[in-house]
Amino acid sequence: MKIQLINPNTSVAMTASLAEAAQPLLRPGNQLLAVTNGSGPASIEGHYDEALSVPGLLQAIREGERDGAEGHVIACFGDPGLLAAREIARFPVIGIAEAAMHLATWVATGFSIVTTLGRTKVIARHLVERYGFHQHCRGIHAVEIPVLALDQDPDGLRRIMRTACLDALARDESGAIVLGCAGMSHLATELQEELGVPVIDGVSAALKMVEMLGELRLSTSKRGDLDFPLPKPYAGFLRGFAVGG
Amino acid sequence: MKIQLINPNTSVAMTASLAEAAQPLLRPGNQLLAVTNGSGPASIEGHYDEALSVPGLLQAIREGERDGAEGHVIACFGDPGLLAAREIARFPVIGIAEAAMHLATWVATGFSIVTTLGRTKVIARHLVERYGFHQHCRGIHAVEIPVLALDQDPDGLRRIMRTACLDALARDESGAIVLGCAGMSHLATELQEELGVPVIDGVSAALKMVEMLGELRLSTSKRGDLDFPLPKPYAGFLRGFAVGG
Amino acid sequence: MKIQLINPNTSVAMTASLAEAAQPLLRPGNQLLAVTNGSGPASIEGHYDEALSVPGLLQAIREGERDGAEGHVIACFGDPGLLAAREIARFPVIGIAEAAMHLATWVATGFSIVTTLGRTKVIARHLVERYGFHQHCRGIHAVEIPVLALDQDPDGLRRIMRTACLDALARDESGAIVLGCAGMSHLATELQEELGVPVIDGVSAALKMVEMLGELRLSTSKRGDLDFPLPKPYAGFLRGFAVGG
Amino acid sequence: MKIQLINPNTSVAMTASLAEAAQPLLRPGNQLLAVTNGSGPASIEGHYDEALSVPGLLQAIREGERDGAEGHVIACFGDPGLLAAREIARFPVIGIAEAAMHLATWVATGFSIVTTLGRTKVIARHLVERYGFHQHCRGIHAVEIPVLALDQDPDGLRRIMRTACLDALARDESGAIVLGCAGMSHLATELQEELGVPVIDGVSAALKMVEMLGELRLSTSKRGDLDFPLPKPYAGFLRGFAVGG
Amino acid sequence: MKIQLINPNTSVAMTASLAEAAQPLLRPGNQLLAVTNGSGPASIEGHYDEALSVPGLLQAIREGERDGAEGHVIACFGDPGLLAAREIARFPVIGIAEAAMHLATWVATGFSIVTTLGRTKVIARHLVERYGFHQHCRGIHAVEIPVLALDQDPDGLRRIMRTACLDALARDESGAIVLGCAGMSHLATELQEELGVPVIDGVSAALKMVEMLGELRLSTSKRGDLDFPLPKPYAGFLRGFAVGG
Amino acid sequence: MKIQLINPNTSVAMTASLAEAAQPLLRPGNQLLAVTNGSGPASIEGHYDEALSVPGLLQAIREGERDGAEGHVIACFGDPGLLAAREIARFPVIGIAEAAMHLATWVATGFSIVTTLGRTKVIARHLVERYGFHQHCRGIHAVEIPVLALDQDPDGLRRIMRTACLDALARDESGAIVLGCAGMSHLATELQEELGVPVIDGVSAALKMVEMLGELRLSTSKRGDLDFPLPKPYAGFLRGFAVGG
Repeated sequence: MKIQLINPNTSVAMTASLAEAAQPLLRPGNQLLAVTNGSGPASIEGHYDEALSVPGLLQAIREGERDGAEGHVIACFGDPGLLAAREIARFPVIGIAEAAMHLATWVATGFSIVTTLGRTKVIARHLVERYGFHQHCRGIHAVEIPVLALDQDPDGLRRIMRTACLDALARDESGAIVLGCAGMSHLATELQEELGVPVIDGVSAALKMVEMLGELRLSTSKRGDLDFPLPKPYAGFLRGFAVGG
Repeated sequence: MKIQLINPNTSVAMTASLAEAAQPLLRPGNQLLAVTNGSGPASIEGHYDEALSVPGLLQAIREGERDGAEGHVIACFGDPGLLAAREIARFPVIGIAEAAMHLATWVATGFSIVTTLGRTKVIARHLVERYGFHQHCRGIHAVEIPVLALDQDPDGLRRIMRTACLDALARDESGAIVLGCAGMSHLATELQEELGVPVIDGVSAALKMVEMLGELRLSTSKRGDLDFPLPKPYAGFLRGFAVGG
Repeated sequence: MKIQLINPNTSVAMTASLAEAAQPLLRPGNQLLAVTNGSGPASIEGHYDEALSVPGLLQAIREGERDGAEGHVIACFGDPGLLAAREIARFPVIGIAEAAMHLATWVATGFSIVTTLGRTKVIARHLVERYGFHQHCRGIHAVEIPVLALDQDPDGLRRIMRTACLDALARDESGAIVLGCAGMSHLATELQEELGVPVIDGVSAALKMVEMLGELRLSTSKRGDLDFPLPKPYAGFLRGFAVGG
Repeated sequence: MKIQLINPNTSVAMTASLAEAAQPLLRPGNQLLAVTNGSGPASIEGHYDEALSVPGLLQAIREGERDGAEGHVIACFGDPGLLAAREIARFPVIGIAEAAMHLATWVATGFSIVTTLGRTKVIARHLVERYGFHQHCRGIHAVEIPVLALDQDPDGLRRIMRTACLDALARDESGAIVLGCAGMSHLATELQEELGVPVIDGVSAALKMVEMLGELRLSTSKRGDLDFPLPKPYAGFLRGFAVGG
Repeated sequence: MKIQLINPNTSVAMTASLAEAAQPLLRPGNQLLAVTNGSGPASIEGHYDEALSVPGLLQAIREGERDGAEGHVIACFGDPGLLAAREIARFPVIGIAEAAMHLATWVATGFSIVTTLGRTKVIARHLVERYGFHQHCRGIHAVEIPVLALDQDPDGLRRIMRTACLDALARDESGAIVLGCAGMSHLATELQEELGVPVIDGVSAALKMVEMLGELRLSTSKRGDLDFPLPKPYAGFLRGFAVGG
Repeated sequence: MKIQLINPNTSVAMTASLAEAAQPLLRPGNQLLAVTNGSGPASIEGHYDEALSVPGLLQAIREGERDGAEGHVIACFGDPGLLAAREIARFPVIGIAEAAMHLATWVATGFSIVTTLGRTKVIARHLVERYGFHQHCRGIHAVEIPVLALDQDPDGLRRIMRTACLDALARDESGAIVLGCAGMSHLATELQEELGVPVIDGVSAALKMVEMLGELRLSTSKRGDLDFPLPKPYAGFLRGFAVGG
């Protein structure tokens, strides 16, 4: 089974590090197809960036399908374009925020989200409501480090994250940490050991969910609102996005 | 005050009819700037269409601002790109679903939404939750007519809409109808007379809200999560969307 | 169009200052009919005051209608008697809490309410739930100044309000301030300039909404639960309130 | 212990029949003080009637307290003026809608409300939300009989109620019936026998809750928002309502 | 009327002190049947303890019924086995958390819960959601004293509880305290005098509710999901729990 | 990795068929440890049965751990004892209702539950609320076949299930079916082919989630409310359940 890991921002470096962290998690026989969004923002730190990451992401999904992918992971904590992706994809699509939050409720009665910039907290907040976890998510916290700066000072980041997580666990009386950015994936294992609580990285969670759906032969329902898009003309620089017809 | 009315789909005909209906509603001295999305789907009937209407819509907003618009209306019932638009715009941005639902709660304790295709009901459903109106929205109904077919048989449409609205009012025990598609705007007045209940067209509602915000000198808060997007490089066919820097 | 601005408390001074602030906001040709509640409490600072402001308020609405008003604003942040008023009025009725909260969601993803006495916070809290904005209202704060003391020390009030708003914005991570009392209306503009965020005064917001509904020829649905009251005898000192018959 | 049973409408006949039904339920030694609202509507069938029943009701509470009542029941299913009454009363105040809904959740996982006119359903609906029982209340149904017509055709009423309750139990898959009007109290016992499910009359439930609070020496908290009203002048025909000072 | 007070933990001492506190509250003629759970944990401080208190508790209910009890109180703040107990019991069953929370909403617009160990807060939190009181419960606080240590240092406990309650009232801006453990019952009266707010002990509240249901001839609905369990074989050390058949 | 599949009822036949269906789903190298509850009800069809399935289930978990299990599945749609199990288990515990509902939201925007007896619907209803899926679960339906009768007339069951699912999809406008009983597991594949929508069996879903958690080295947080139970004496026929100490 080939699984496509899509980095919705255009940072090739981040894609590489995501792939490096994800590769060892795949089950024997499964294959990782890590791709970087070809068009859009270098990082996603607001609604504008997020909206503009979607066309490239949808294109990537169609290409991935063409390249034999049988499942897709959207590796940005805002789960950009998730439902749109489910409409066009034949195979399962999982977002990392969704994956991390769902998983968190299986290992704790309450979780805290630790993300990058405060301005992105509203995105997590809206997802918590959409997914139905307002009783489980006890707090959303920001370390105020831009996405692309996450890898600039690894030690500093570790220190800051450790402090932020400890503070979140105490203030929220929560039992698990959800990492609020794909760029934090590589910190999960170490933080988990240090903090002694589950630290959940949505990227690995989503990969496993896609593998799981594949093994269960389950995919997006094509009955009703997630059916393939209706055929129709598309215009302008997006004319190539027309489907079917 | 110049107000931009953006049709997020690429149908010039629909834009024209929206403008025709909207023009007379404007206050003396105000000016309508009706624009059609230059790129994207001919009609918006799902998450995929909706997501792909956003880049063109955001571009239109920036152009509108350049052309002196001091407010923007997003004329699609899914309110595509609403928060992204608020991030980049200096002036108010209102979506027609938002406008219609808010207004409906001022004239009735419960309302019904009548929209086009059943597959779009989930979009309305999610907006109802996001906006907080699950206690006010008593039902969402579809006439199963594609957006672009709405103007093909005017008399048939009137008949079908009348029946659907009567049925909705009865089944939902609601006091008002919210039209679930910009393409239904021209039916509001006639339906309202026939049904004897408020029939709310989001396009006119949103226009009035933009006028209102302008007169009150209120616009999107630039404190926190709706602040202007952070400057950063954009790549690929969206490279032109980079802001600031 | 003649719009009636009703001050539900009996303070003529407050009515005058409300009228003074509201007058310039009216559209050319529209006329303000500012009235003071003829019977009830000098100020509304609890459920008891609020309940007893309603008969006079309903009487005012009927008189206003007789005097040609085509819309009504209830200028108390508890929105006293709102649904009762909608039942008897032919024309739109808007409450200022309702108006301010709705508007706040158009310019920010989260807002804070700053009101007078702590004991009135529960009223705002209940309205937030009723209107469906518990996801948008991030906090309710009180400056502990009685309504009628608001104009006693203008400079002191400004200082206290500024501090309270800054504190609310910081603690709630909100993007806009909703003024929780009609008596604070005159502070909106200045506070907005000082704080650099939308500061929303429900009185002006409600006036504009009434103008807007008038222009859209929309009024309270008379289908179902907001229909005119059923004719029936009334007894005692309220015997004059019997309708129809 | 003297308990005041207040009929918020002005129908002396209804008060008498409520008293007759309630009397035998009182514990030995307790005394019933049944009073009819001296001013307001002959029946309460909407927001307007309800709002105008409150002043007389509050007056009744103060008189009741003067006459030695140590608890008060508001015998109208809309619980008019409940929080205002709690502000002025030293002793417990219970509304019959509140009482019936609370009790229903102790004997069934889901209940149905059967009330008089459809136009009053919204009042019950709002109370269900306010009290937090939207997961427990599975349906609200109306028999479309005006309050004051309830006693005109006893046999017809029984038949209609029986049918409405059976229909509600089946459609809602509920386990108990909540009678949605004080005027239905006398039907509870008979209906309960016929239907074989708990049929809950709020009047008797509220009386018992008041007795219970008295025995537990518990009354309304005077800390915070239900404290006695602040002293202040009252004007007009309500001038007599000024408290303290 | 004989009322069974069940202590779901196995501490005979606690049962004795509960009985001592409850006895004087019973109405003349009513009789208290206080029993200690014969099997299970010495104290209930988590989901595991709670689950294992249920079989003994259900057995106690059947024995109580055999001994003529016409109502049952489950005296543990987690309301263990409440719905299961309602299935097998012919007469009313009330849990003390349920009782205390319901009652709290009759005397205050918001309440705070003060319980024993922080690890049990999640149980109260889940009950608040299940019962529908998330708008009324403004905070849950723990004094971090194990259930069985509550009676070891009476003066210390009083001091700690007083401080915790004052802190809760201030932080939550609430009007009443709900005691979060049966073992705190004996503190209610004294705390109430000291704090000047209602301090609600679920044990006495539940007893009164059972008396009340008895007087109203109301009991658990046997229509639908609380009907007597279906007859079926039981195996293992629980084989004795098979019903009917 | 050894995974324990626990059938909370005492039917050995059902355990065997669950094991048969589950076995092929396990990943190479993983091992299934299918056990039947040694004490409790032959089937779980209400709160009473459910509560009494828990002790045996908790015992099974401890034995499973002793036998080297590194994960546990609770194969009853009520998820009996889930949080208690998480307290005592070192390794992940997943309930099948939880598993099926979570998974359903990844493949559809709305799902329907089809279960056995109507009286068990309330259990599913409560879980939907607890897990946060009231926006996703569009309906709960019962075929009114007792759990142990599910295998008596395989063809009849297929027919009935097919009809019930089609009816649910149509009435709920949902995109996926969640099977509401472990005893329906064997129908999933066939129904999915017939209906053309995802038909989700919680048993296989839960197994995969346990495998997934194992591979991610994630387990229940032992910080806070899911920590191992506090050591304390246990009495009576449950004395063996005392932990630690």
